[in-house]
Amino acid sequence: MSSLFDKIGAELRRGLVQIVALSLLRERLYGYQIVKILAASGLETEEGTLYPLLRRLESQGLLLSEWDTHGSRPRKYYELSPEGRAALPKLEEVWRDITGAVGRILESDSPAELAEAEAK
Amino acid sequence: MSSLFDKIGAELRRGLVQIVALSLLRERLYGYQIVKILAASGLETEEGTLYPLLRRLESQGLLLSEWDTHGSRPRKYYELSPEGRAALPKLEEVWRDITGAVGRILESDSPAELAEAEAK
Repeated sequence: MSSLFDKIGAELRRGLVQIVALSLLRERLYGYQIVKILAASGLETEEGTLYPLLRRLESQGLLLSEWDTHGSRPRKYYELSPEGRAALPKLEEVWRDITGAVGRILESDSPAELAEAEAK
Repeated sequence: MSSLFDKIGAELRRGLVQIVALSLLRERLYGYQIVKILAASGLETEEGTLYPLLRRLESQGLLLSEWDTHGSRPRKYYELSPEGRAALPKLEEVWRDITGAVGRILESDSPAELAEAEAK
């Protein structure tokens, strides 16, 4: 049973990674830093999951990237683009709306009645 | 830009549907009721997404189902199995842990520092 909940938790985390990555990239970070921060926050994410996501968010215009070749190995840094920075509050609103809805369902004694009341 | 956030929101909702469906199924409901409740809660989910998920949760032993053939058309009702009912608190804990972690990142002025502090 614990492996089943690990799986549900993993799927949930995957859906959250892009919103969290965008929030983290208010600061300039390279990919592996993000992996470490996610893991430290309990949102373990494989590099193979994160890196394609970062490239996609960049191609969508939300992130900017830059190679830093000064260190012992080149590192690709990411940061929110001006568009991404402007869009972040909207994303946080999506997050609050969704988690609010889920929280109300989880905390309600009769979620079916609750949702019917909301629909009115 | 709004369509992009619709997309991020949709992906996030998809990850949440199974946790919400299990919570809803503390009460006996048929599939389309769940679709309506999810929509009323702002978690729009297609029947084609939900129904395979319900079957999967049943095959994993978390749900029980039963056909009711008394009405004008047969309806398949679902409800938490005893195993599902026993497991729900653990699932809610997963939810709280994950949303707590995401919330702390979104609300932090320096999420990188925050995560480094948590790792210590």
